[in-house]
Amino acid sequence: MTTTIDGARIARRIRQQVAAEVAAAALSGTVPGLATILVGDDPASAVYVAAKRRAITEAGMRDFHRHLPHHATHDDVAAVIDALAADPEVSGILLQLPLPVQLDAATLIDRIPVTKDVDGLTTTSLGLLARGEQGLRPCTPSGIIALLDAEGIALKGAHVAVVGWGELVGRPLTHLLLSRGATVSVAHEHTTDLAAVTRPADIVVVATGVPGLIGPEHVRHGATVIDVGIHRTSAGLRGDARTGELIDVAGRITPVPGGVGPMTIAILLANTLYAAERGTRPYTVPV
Amino acid sequence: MTTTIDGARIARRIRQQVAAEVAAAALSGTVPGLATILVGDDPASAVYVAAKRRAITEAGMRDFHRHLPHHATHDDVAAVIDALAADPEVSGILLQLPLPVQLDAATLIDRIPVTKDVDGLTTTSLGLLARGEQGLRPCTPSGIIALLDAEGIALKGAHVAVVGWGELVGRPLTHLLLSRGATVSVAHEHTTDLAAVTRPADIVVVATGVPGLIGPEHVRHGATVIDVGIHRTSAGLRGDARTGELIDVAGRITPVPGGVGPMTIAILLANTLYAAERGTRPYTVPV
Ligand SMILES: NC(=O)c1ccc[n+]([C@@H]2O[C@H](COP(=O)([O-])OP(=O)(O)OC[C@H]3O[C@@H](n4cnc5c(N)ncnc54)[C@H](O)[C@@H]3O)[C@@H](O)[C@H]2O)c1
Ligand SMILES: NC(=O)c1ccc[n+]([C@@H]2O[C@H](COP(=O)([O-])OP(=O)(O)OC[C@H]3O[C@@H](n4cnc5c(N)ncnc54)[C@H](O)[C@@H]3O)[C@@H](O)[C@H]2O)c1
Repeated sequence: MTTTIDGARIARRIRQQVAAEVAAAALSGTVPGLATILVGDDPASAVYVAAKRRAITEAGMRDFHRHLPHHATHDDVAAVIDALAADPEVSGILLQLPLPVQLDAATLIDRIPVTKDVDGLTTTSLGLLARGEQGLRPCTPSGIIALLDAEGIALKGAHVAVVGWGELVGRPLTHLLLSRGATVSVAHEHTTDLAAVTRPADIVVVATGVPGLIGPEHVRHGATVIDVGIHRTSAGLRGDARTGELIDVAGRITPVPGGVGPMTIAILLANTLYAAERGTRPYTVPV
Repeated sequence: MTTTIDGARIARRIRQQVAAEVAAAALSGTVPGLATILVGDDPASAVYVAAKRRAITEAGMRDFHRHLPHHATHDDVAAVIDALAADPEVSGILLQLPLPVQLDAATLIDRIPVTKDVDGLTTTSLGLLARGEQGLRPCTPSGIIALLDAEGIALKGAHVAVVGWGELVGRPLTHLLLSRGATVSVAHEHTTDLAAVTRPADIVVVATGVPGLIGPEHVRHGATVIDVGIHRTSAGLRGDARTGELIDVAGRITPVPGGVGPMTIAILLANTLYAAERGTRPYTVPV
């Protein structure tokens, strides 16, 4: 029997908890606010940003949105970031990726002050993660940790295979898992024998952008599969795992949609709240 | 037959190459300089700093040394760092670790400008490494990569077990190996079955501070063993591997002393040269 992990339900609980904390903070006059910056008209990005703004509003936080045309220059985007950085009502700044080709994402992300870096992707935030120091952590990897915690899946001493060494997911997730005492094996496109890496693992996380990469040949009986991929197909959203084939192989699996995706937004809210309260408490992901 | 990897010889070649480049740069009037800061009187630290200063001088670079008493305050050390940071003759600044207990290493290291961070341990340098961007890399992990390159051991597609997730070695080394296309498994003190992680590996790197941790039960026949440990015993220096027992098991092994240790100093010289020439060429480790 394979259990489907209900990420939507876990995410809802985190969002409710954040909303309750926001309501409590509002009594003393502080309302956290998130500024989303969308450059251009990529339809997928527009959908993601809309979902984030809706969630922010539902949690009782302020929604500051900036939409720039697809031909915006580096200086245009930099000026918007600088204005938001200086605005005390803005707790967090999120620059939606990918950016149009004329813009350098790394340079622009690094204009976001580390205290407002709710996506956890500035050089400084990633350095703090590498050092194991307090700081805002990237949303999707933090969401995966929160989801495993909520399911009661132990990390200390567990063997986790991380498939994909991307900047958004695999790299920061590897640090988070190791800081929780998991043994971690990292595979990627140059890995010669993927199944040899994933089959010994208690937990397989796949974040590659390759539809249906992971199947029963990669997963030992009873292991947990966390599927981070999102692909739009004619049959609906699909992930990086062949979920159907993993029934009765995986012990637990996250569905696409409804698994990791909703967790990313829930953690964005938690990060915005943390940024608003900065310095007053250690960073923890609510579960 | 087990081959002993002659780290001292490889390190000497790198140091000669750096010295030649320093001599060439001197013709146009620039002489790179390294400032070492030693706080207190830890005998091992004094030995390490002396070896680094000697190597710097031998390579034709300037040696700026600052010795502070063991009771130095945060402000004392900060003032020394700030003065060296402002001095155009100082290309690189190295704060020797460990520091006396009253000092916070992370905060003091982060006062070193990223352009002079020849140890590669500031938050910014570690963030640049995580992002895969240009920057100075920590000396010991870079030295391990240079040593494997010099031996002609391929990294792309190789399976490497990194034993130890420390800040100086395991963490940055994992990033460097993955950026070179290796598949990496990371083990540490919470790993439940260490041999299960290390036996499949083509290369086992051990950096734990546990004398003699790795033996024939952990290493598959013909694999390469890189021993980063340094322990002073009555019988001389020893590492984290039981070298004697690995004869005819490991294909190649680094000795202690004479393996990774000399590489660390060679890379420090290369990093100081790179810092002096900053911006004029991409960071590469000479082999
Ligand atoms: N659910 C969410 O909320 C969410 C959030 C962010 C990203 N994602 C998804 O996660 C995935 C990864 O994101 P990213 O930005 O980290 O990716 P990336 O593109 O930066 O990295 C992809 C990684 O996958 C590896 N890879 C490619 N082909 C492979 C193969 N055949 N076998 C093994 N590894 C292979 C690459 O080597 C690389 O390390 C994407 O599909 C993205 O859509 C989902
Ligand atoms: N040769 C050199 O030039 C050089 C330079 C730097 C460090 N070192 C040596 O490298 C070692 C590591 O340095 P660091 O600063 O990264 O270490 P660290 O103390 O920060 O980390 C040690 C790591 O080893 C792990 N570990 C401890 N016991 C273990 C066990 N029984 N099994 C598996 N893992 C275990 C810990 O979990 C931790 O991840 C030290 O011995 C240090 O002396 C050598």
